[in-house]
Amino acid sequence: MATDNPSFVLRAVEDVAYEERPVPEIKGDEVLVAVKKTGICGSDVHYLVEGRIGDFVVEKPMVLGHESAGVVSRGKQILFIDVLVGPDVKHLKPGDRVAMEPGATCRLCDACKLGRYNLCPDIVFAATPPYDGTLARYYRLPADLAYPLPENVSLEDGAMMEPLAVGVHSVSNLGSFYANQTIAVFGCGPVGLLCMAVAKAIGASRIVAVDIVPARLEFAKIYIGAETYLPPKFENGESKIDYSRRNATLMKQQLDITDRGRNSIDLVIDASGAEVSIQTGFYVVKTGGTFVQVGMGNPNVTLNLSLLMTKELNYKGSFRYGPGDYPLAISLVASGKIDLKPLVTHRFKFEDAIVAFKATRAGKSEDGKGVIKAIISGPGED
Amino acid sequence: MATDNPSFVLRAVEDVAYEERPVPEIKGDEVLVAVKKTGICGSDVHYLVEGRIGDFVVEKPMVLGHESAGVVSRGKQILFIDVLVGPDVKHLKPGDRVAMEPGATCRLCDACKLGRYNLCPDIVFAATPPYDGTLARYYRLPADLAYPLPENVSLEDGAMMEPLAVGVHSVSNLGSFYANQTIAVFGCGPVGLLCMAVAKAIGASRIVAVDIVPARLEFAKIYIGAETYLPPKFENGESKIDYSRRNATLMKQQLDITDRGRNSIDLVIDASGAEVSIQTGFYVVKTGGTFVQVGMGNPNVTLNLSLLMTKELNYKGSFRYGPGDYPLAISLVASGKIDLKPLVTHRFKFEDAIVAFKATRAGKSEDGKGVIKAIISGPGED
Amino acid sequence: MATDNPSFVLRAVEDVAYEERPVPEIKGDEVLVAVKKTGICGSDVHYLVEGRIGDFVVEKPMVLGHESAGVVSRGKQILFIDVLVGPDVKHLKPGDRVAMEPGATCRLCDACKLGRYNLCPDIVFAATPPYDGTLARYYRLPADLAYPLPENVSLEDGAMMEPLAVGVHSVSNLGSFYANQTIAVFGCGPVGLLCMAVAKAIGASRIVAVDIVPARLEFAKIYIGAETYLPPKFENGESKIDYSRRNATLMKQQLDITDRGRNSIDLVIDASGAEVSIQTGFYVVKTGGTFVQVGMGNPNVTLNLSLLMTKELNYKGSFRYGPGDYPLAISLVASGKIDLKPLVTHRFKFEDAIVAFKATRAGKSEDGKGVIKAIISGPGED
Amino acid sequence: MATDNPSFVLRAVEDVAYEERPVPEIKGDEVLVAVKKTGICGSDVHYLVEGRIGDFVVEKPMVLGHESAGVVSRGKQILFIDVLVGPDVKHLKPGDRVAMEPGATCRLCDACKLGRYNLCPDIVFAATPPYDGTLARYYRLPADLAYPLPENVSLEDGAMMEPLAVGVHSVSNLGSFYANQTIAVFGCGPVGLLCMAVAKAIGASRIVAVDIVPARLEFAKIYIGAETYLPPKFENGESKIDYSRRNATLMKQQLDITDRGRNSIDLVIDASGAEVSIQTGFYVVKTGGTFVQVGMGNPNVTLNLSLLMTKELNYKGSFRYGPGDYPLAISLVASGKIDLKPLVTHRFKFEDAIVAFKATRAGKSEDGKGVIKAIISGPGED
Repeated sequence: MATDNPSFVLRAVEDVAYEERPVPEIKGDEVLVAVKKTGICGSDVHYLVEGRIGDFVVEKPMVLGHESAGVVSRGKQILFIDVLVGPDVKHLKPGDRVAMEPGATCRLCDACKLGRYNLCPDIVFAATPPYDGTLARYYRLPADLAYPLPENVSLEDGAMMEPLAVGVHSVSNLGSFYANQTIAVFGCGPVGLLCMAVAKAIGASRIVAVDIVPARLEFAKIYIGAETYLPPKFENGESKIDYSRRNATLMKQQLDITDRGRNSIDLVIDASGAEVSIQTGFYVVKTGGTFVQVGMGNPNVTLNLSLLMTKELNYKGSFRYGPGDYPLAISLVASGKIDLKPLVTHRFKFEDAIVAFKATRAGKSEDGKGVIKAIISGPGED
Repeated sequence: MATDNPSFVLRAVEDVAYEERPVPEIKGDEVLVAVKKTGICGSDVHYLVEGRIGDFVVEKPMVLGHESAGVVSRGKQILFIDVLVGPDVKHLKPGDRVAMEPGATCRLCDACKLGRYNLCPDIVFAATPPYDGTLARYYRLPADLAYPLPENVSLEDGAMMEPLAVGVHSVSNLGSFYANQTIAVFGCGPVGLLCMAVAKAIGASRIVAVDIVPARLEFAKIYIGAETYLPPKFENGESKIDYSRRNATLMKQQLDITDRGRNSIDLVIDASGAEVSIQTGFYVVKTGGTFVQVGMGNPNVTLNLSLLMTKELNYKGSFRYGPGDYPLAISLVASGKIDLKPLVTHRFKFEDAIVAFKATRAGKSEDGKGVIKAIISGPGED
Repeated sequence: MATDNPSFVLRAVEDVAYEERPVPEIKGDEVLVAVKKTGICGSDVHYLVEGRIGDFVVEKPMVLGHESAGVVSRGKQILFIDVLVGPDVKHLKPGDRVAMEPGATCRLCDACKLGRYNLCPDIVFAATPPYDGTLARYYRLPADLAYPLPENVSLEDGAMMEPLAVGVHSVSNLGSFYANQTIAVFGCGPVGLLCMAVAKAIGASRIVAVDIVPARLEFAKIYIGAETYLPPKFENGESKIDYSRRNATLMKQQLDITDRGRNSIDLVIDASGAEVSIQTGFYVVKTGGTFVQVGMGNPNVTLNLSLLMTKELNYKGSFRYGPGDYPLAISLVASGKIDLKPLVTHRFKFEDAIVAFKATRAGKSEDGKGVIKAIISGPGED
Repeated sequence: MATDNPSFVLRAVEDVAYEERPVPEIKGDEVLVAVKKTGICGSDVHYLVEGRIGDFVVEKPMVLGHESAGVVSRGKQILFIDVLVGPDVKHLKPGDRVAMEPGATCRLCDACKLGRYNLCPDIVFAATPPYDGTLARYYRLPADLAYPLPENVSLEDGAMMEPLAVGVHSVSNLGSFYANQTIAVFGCGPVGLLCMAVAKAIGASRIVAVDIVPARLEFAKIYIGAETYLPPKFENGESKIDYSRRNATLMKQQLDITDRGRNSIDLVIDASGAEVSIQTGFYVVKTGGTFVQVGMGNPNVTLNLSLLMTKELNYKGSFRYGPGDYPLAISLVASGKIDLKPLVTHRFKFEDAIVAFKATRAGKSEDGKGVIKAIISGPGED
């Protein structure tokens, strides 16, 4: 059993280390991917700092990372024969550059069969306990989850397909967003920005970005051409609900947003997880509109159900991505409708993974430059 | 101008009286309906007691009532000529028994044109301020909102079509409920019971009724054949969120409810408006399921967004009813799939309207009999 | 390798014989099913008589049969170890009675992932060349395609789930048929009858059966309670299009069918494959209605596109069944909403399979009794 | 009654003349529009030449024209008082430039209420017998069908909104076309070109244009950037079905079109009405794909139902346009995603209307220049 598989392992809260792990053995319909680029996600940092996200608890050492792209490699198979790719795999060959969708599903349950495989109860998702992630030299993947990258799409772009697929799932799939519709996105982190990028690629007639950090709004303005809105400060003793009503009134005045018609907001995405953002969004979305929740924050949030009912809103939770989301993400990038490069603000060698985590956690690197997305190269890569 | 139109008017909070109002004059596409039966709705009582529901405030005297059926009558028109029905009306003649849909819409706005007329901003809805209701001798109605009743459907049934349409809208339209699906309904008042009745008529394979009043559960069991669940009492110092988690766990154990598969709940309807019901429902609905909010209660409610997201729920507000809901309601009753008679527990003469309100408000009449629905006859009727 | 697997094999056109075939070896997620009951389908007869259906050509001996139910049995696995069921199978044990869905799909392609696995290009479908069918002692099946039968559902019922799933797919899935809608079905063979049975179970307010054989109409009337329509004879020199217009006019007059409103037909199903049926159906379906084509006949058919356009029809091809169709079929039978027993008119021993085919082909057995569905027992069964 | 309303009237087949017609009197929710620009549609020419389209027969003199834009004008109302716009109209004032949607519906029937008003049986559609069209000085319009044109949208653009709305309805509404999907359009006349323009605006990743006239393909290539395909000539004795199969095979080879995956065609639009185009389209559309019929030709067409069934196609008729189509059309032009100017190849004064019809009928003007769209100015305009 080959062991040439250096991996970046979370051993316990705030305790990471490099370990040599066995090279995975692949089955007939799998490929072994040499991981080349991996983005750091807020959830990776969360596991590092908290050791858990909701009911997902890190109980044994776990390789981190799940936003990756790589190159199809040689694998190992039963009976000690080195193989290239699984014998049942037809659309890939060693050397192919691929984006790696990090959730392997059972393909047998109702969710898998009915087109919602992200809800499969037996999903094996990279860097979600107890399953190891992709920050290693090699990662084993069902071949259909390794998407060949067109020539004009880089490996870094490939690593970005994971958060972009989250945006596609939220905006296009759940949000049913359509050409010349309007969107407001609360939270201008990577997922929020990518939701806006998807909306722009689909042909939004209006994109409103909301964040409490002016520099992030500035980025959204330059990157997307979004209209921007900076919420006011809390007033003394103001409740969150009162603040949110005031905030929504200001936002609607400032940007001439109405409840109906051409100046209304068809779709609100909350990518912040902040209670006041969600509350404000309920006021801002149009009558009969859709609100997709993609940002995780405080699990319990107080909402205005009068608005839900009298505006007959559709409030949807978004969880990862499902069938068709990776392919649409890749094609939007390949066709030039989305440019992922401006989002990659920091790059690190594999050996510097811990620095990358530190910067992502702080929101800026030691030189003070704000982090949108930090990418870690595979072992031995620059 | 004829004035033979005795009306039951809310003058101020807790202040009602009979007034003679002018007989409405009808336009070409309207009919004048002699109101024969009117059910009392919780919202009527709410206006009586509070003078407002959310942003709808009673600022001048308003006739109450909006759940009505009647008989197409003679009307009055411009130029002092008595007419029977509006000259443009083809499908009705005087004497026709009709269910009265109480919301006249503009027919011109996006909501009206796109099949969601309940969201019309200019809707004239009976007994919603500032518009008068139906507790009068005559009510003017656009002819297409007067639905002829089949012979085997009584005028009392006709009055019940209004809350039944709410059930149809919530279960069939928004809930997309289908044959052999499963449903849980929180709150066994009239709307909750009618949601269950709709689910049963559509072919539910499982109906679960939840209420804190054992007698109401008993009724749901007899009327619908529902499985029933009685939530436990709060424990000392227990938060609502903690209580709801415990409540959901108990409910799922007791009724063998799972998150997926044949024992899961496809659709949860909250017809209670109670915060703990909604919280519990988030736990009870299946992964990937739908939750429709039809009960109005405290406008601000704390919800578990982790469940919304990881189960990728669809949480929808329900507001009144839209195109197709009245016709489906009537056809479900006419075909015998729904029996409305058991729900009418109390009947009052027009002169006794105040007694009817008192009983509905108390939840029981003076003889101690529980009220599900109280019906008030038109002036001069028994 | 065990060979105790007597099989009913189509060797060439009009040439069938019993052969001993090896007992299939199962993989980890498969089960071996001892086939107990198999219905004969028109397509089985078609292969026998013509050796092909469209582009599917029998080029080597092929076991017939695909409408089957059986009992989970002991299997064989690699390495010569007898196993019971595949080691990855959790929901089945030897002895379980199961309906057998006869199409094993790749689970990897877009069609499989997006919820339309019946369109999988690599589907292995029983008794569709070059794949063997189920008329044998044993059949190997992916475990998720073996659906446990509730106690009140017989093995014969289980065999009937295959054509019933076709009805579910056409009426419920593609036809989006809903409670209190109306349907007309052209062709009262097994599939047509089962489409009507599904419509009835879903709560149709009106079911119209059309066939040129009065006895079949009579059966539809008794079995479903359908209204029936017997088309007239062709007149001298009348073209099919002219005949169809006349036929539709007669049918609409006779049954008071309109183009809109309560007397209109929401959904037309053609289960006949006859050109004049399809042409007539275009006239009969309501404006804005849906027409599902499930019967295969002459591949090329002349249609009235003016009707397609001015009525803005939705004309859909139906092919086999997809995710959710078998489960809904089983639950409709288990809940008593569909009774399959009256459809099984003939029963044969395995050794008499050729007689069963003869009767199905003739449409009646030697005693003159009309065949709706003939069921063949497994080897050694009564 | 004012009579200053010169109108271009079809008196009988091949017999047109100018007549003075009364200026229409408007109701409260209507506006009088001074028509400034009107495009000539194939249907106008068809009425001129044949006197009928299908069941629509010109039985009395009828003003032609229905693709128009104009300026809101002064109207006349009951009681001999000159009014500006109807008293109930709020969003328009005299002088506003508007696109004119030419179908006034009843707003009361099921079709109108359920969001499919194009199927209203009582629609009053310009230049569809017996209703007069827009080739006149004034046209009366319900105010909600007069869409204000943004500043950057010309009156000629406004007249083009009518055929563009047909494209929007076919591609976006019925075709559910989405960003990065693929489309093939048969027929490169105005409607075919506008279907492609809509697909391009929505973000098509691939657009294939098919026509038998090389110059029209060349235009599609330049205007849309479409891939083009020129069908071969018929061979001696070849049937249409045989030709279509050969044609489809050639087309798929030549353009590398597959039945599934990234090189497949998600949506086929037939804007030609030609039997062989439709037959070819059935072969070309992907498995599980959608085919929208918008071109009218021979009413009876022979189709390959085997393809409809085994590919489980969705074949939809398209009729005019419904709610939301005009607004989307206008916004796609206003946002610069569609440029209508290149399509207007010929312009005529009102007095030269007959020359405009002649050129449209011939497909080219006297100088030999091919006509895509000819626009006629209003009376007195240049």
